[in-house]
Amino acid sequence: MTDLLAEARDLDARDPLAAHLEAFVPAAGVSAYLDGNSLGRPLRELPDRLAAFVREDWGTRLIRSWDEQWMDLPTALGDRIGMLCLGAAAGQTVVADSTTVLLYKLMRAAVAARPERTEIVIEDGNFPTDRFIAEGIAAESGLTLRWISPDPVAGVQVADIEAAVSARTALVVLSHVDYRSGALADMKTITDAVHDVGALMLWDLCHSVGVIPVELDACGVDLAVGCTYKYLNGGPGSPAFAYVNARHHGLLRQPIQGWMGAGDVFAMGSTYAPAGGIRQFISGTPPVLGMLAMQGMLDLIEQATIGAVREKSQALTDLVVRAVDEELAPLGVRLLSPRDAALRGGHVTIGHPDFAEVTKRLWADGVIPDFRFPDGIRLGLSPLSTSYAEALSGVLAVRDALS
Amino acid sequence: MTDLLAEARDLDARDPLAAHLEAFVPAAGVSAYLDGNSLGRPLRELPDRLAAFVREDWGTRLIRSWDEQWMDLPTALGDRIGMLCLGAAAGQTVVADSTTVLLYKLMRAAVAARPERTEIVIEDGNFPTDRFIAEGIAAESGLTLRWISPDPVAGVQVADIEAAVSARTALVVLSHVDYRSGALADMKTITDAVHDVGALMLWDLCHSVGVIPVELDACGVDLAVGCTYKYLNGGPGSPAFAYVNARHHGLLRQPIQGWMGAGDVFAMGSTYAPAGGIRQFISGTPPVLGMLAMQGMLDLIEQATIGAVREKSQALTDLVVRAVDEELAPLGVRLLSPRDAALRGGHVTIGHPDFAEVTKRLWADGVIPDFRFPDGIRLGLSPLSTSYAEALSGVLAVRDALS
Repeated sequence: MTDLLAEARDLDARDPLAAHLEAFVPAAGVSAYLDGNSLGRPLRELPDRLAAFVREDWGTRLIRSWDEQWMDLPTALGDRIGMLCLGAAAGQTVVADSTTVLLYKLMRAAVAARPERTEIVIEDGNFPTDRFIAEGIAAESGLTLRWISPDPVAGVQVADIEAAVSARTALVVLSHVDYRSGALADMKTITDAVHDVGALMLWDLCHSVGVIPVELDACGVDLAVGCTYKYLNGGPGSPAFAYVNARHHGLLRQPIQGWMGAGDVFAMGSTYAPAGGIRQFISGTPPVLGMLAMQGMLDLIEQATIGAVREKSQALTDLVVRAVDEELAPLGVRLLSPRDAALRGGHVTIGHPDFAEVTKRLWADGVIPDFRFPDGIRLGLSPLSTSYAEALSGVLAVRDALS
Repeated sequence: MTDLLAEARDLDARDPLAAHLEAFVPAAGVSAYLDGNSLGRPLRELPDRLAAFVREDWGTRLIRSWDEQWMDLPTALGDRIGMLCLGAAAGQTVVADSTTVLLYKLMRAAVAARPERTEIVIEDGNFPTDRFIAEGIAAESGLTLRWISPDPVAGVQVADIEAAVSARTALVVLSHVDYRSGALADMKTITDAVHDVGALMLWDLCHSVGVIPVELDACGVDLAVGCTYKYLNGGPGSPAFAYVNARHHGLLRQPIQGWMGAGDVFAMGSTYAPAGGIRQFISGTPPVLGMLAMQGMLDLIEQATIGAVREKSQALTDLVVRAVDEELAPLGVRLLSPRDAALRGGHVTIGHPDFAEVTKRLWADGVIPDFRFPDGIRLGLSPLSTSYAEALSGVLAVRDALS
């Protein structure tokens, strides 16, 4: 224990990203914020950025800003996320809507592109909105959902996929990092296995974007979606992004055909004709205000590099796993995440029957992890805003609350 | 002309809402902003509101704010818009998504509720996104679009609807105020005519919410959508609202079934079960940041009352119509809006072959109307942020640019 404290201090002292900790708004009364994987913290620079936006871009340029900058913002910001975080060349990523709405649009587009096929493969432990959307689309399209049930800690393996996919499979929908266990799926081998049967692959990147270098182009991924309010710190309900590999742009068609995805937005034409490229996946007016906060975080990631973020993320979760072993396992707490940092995303999940009660106590004391029904606590460690000492103190607070 | 200037000054001097003009961010270099019906101006108080939100609600309360206030924000804000602007009792209005996405959800829900019917009635001059969404839904559902072609200046009349609807009609989709002419439709008689054949009525309120008292409940309207970045000053791309009359809550089902519209959001259940009431029309995580700006404008509308806003709106457009008659008609400019203020919304549209070129010149000079292809200028007059003198100066600037 003394060793862990000393080690945490030492890791902080040697942390090449430590200077970024000061970039975030301080939270009075919060000693450990361990939920950056649900809602990332705002940057100190944000109020000034928002005020300048209100006074200049919106308040003074007024409607002219649409021509001057806002029309291109969904694709410009998409390109930036793609370049910094997703391994995606320009022209394939767009910011729009919510994750849920983008899942709907891309799943609908995908199954329509495989009209002779009858199944969507999805994990029974995938995030609810992914499952609910797939369930709705299957019901309305007469498709079957083929459920897979991977090990809840290790997460989905390529063997799970190989056993499920076939010439009947239209689409496979998986999370890159499991929202419960934090298990990291092998994107390349799974995508290859899906392609081997001629199906399309849609990755949900909500829990990996901004904390793990993703290689969408290199893995040959077809489709991806992700949110921007976790490790991209875009603020509550900030818009999501969609990635559609360029090879599909002329072939996939999404169902919510709105004016902002039309070829000529202001022609007010009589019939919908989709824009070329990724723009056709936009539907309504882009949520400009919601796209501002994440820009400061993307600046930080650019300075830090996503590789260095991942390195610190692994070191943070390693420290937490060791602290769980030493301090919480004796109290009956189970580790519900993979032990190998290479197989894990940015959070660590632990289980104990008393955790619903413990979480209430922790929140009241300014230690903020995430409770997951029925008995899990997720310790989310956003590398740029979380120190090693803070991460460790969270584990020790769980111990104290349990004792 | 001298009379008009004197009259504008006199109207401003007697304007009971004049004090509110100071509530908006001043736009340096802009002498007349006549596009508040595309993008309303921000309030001066907004930077402070946003900074407080970033530092407290988001930065300090962090994830706890979801429990404390954000989960209820879509319905609380919806209720407030409903009460102040829509004549809608609580529990029927929700803020979410874009207008386009909400149109999709409500149109899909409506046609599914009339499975034996084969037609959607829609105006060929309706706003493109309304038409495009209807076109997509018709194509995927095997429905027919029955187009109506009302007079482009007078807008849709009940006779147009009576001639088009029948026992085949599932849904009628119309704009309350025409985005081109500003013509105001007779909501009550048209809704009654639609109900007479057993069809559902969906009103697009984008150009009426915040400037005209709408009476959704009293008119027995089934469904409505509208945007919040025009006369509600929510900022570029701020989220839209949907109204679903309570009598339909158990019966209509929208297709984008996401976790935030589920009965128990955090149960992470295995099958989607919609929430009760209006909440089921939410799909993804609510765009909280995008819901902040409009709150200041709703405060202003509450102080002013929507009735007084409408009174000033009619007086503003009356003044502009008279100025167009006196100053622009001699130059060949046509009035493309109804002459009777009671039949008109908050903007006045005029036409001239040189208006594309004129608009460029006006914008460069800090006079900002909206150009509409091929040769229209819309003079949008947002009553709380526009003085009579400003409105008149816009018309005179058009005259000078034409001369």
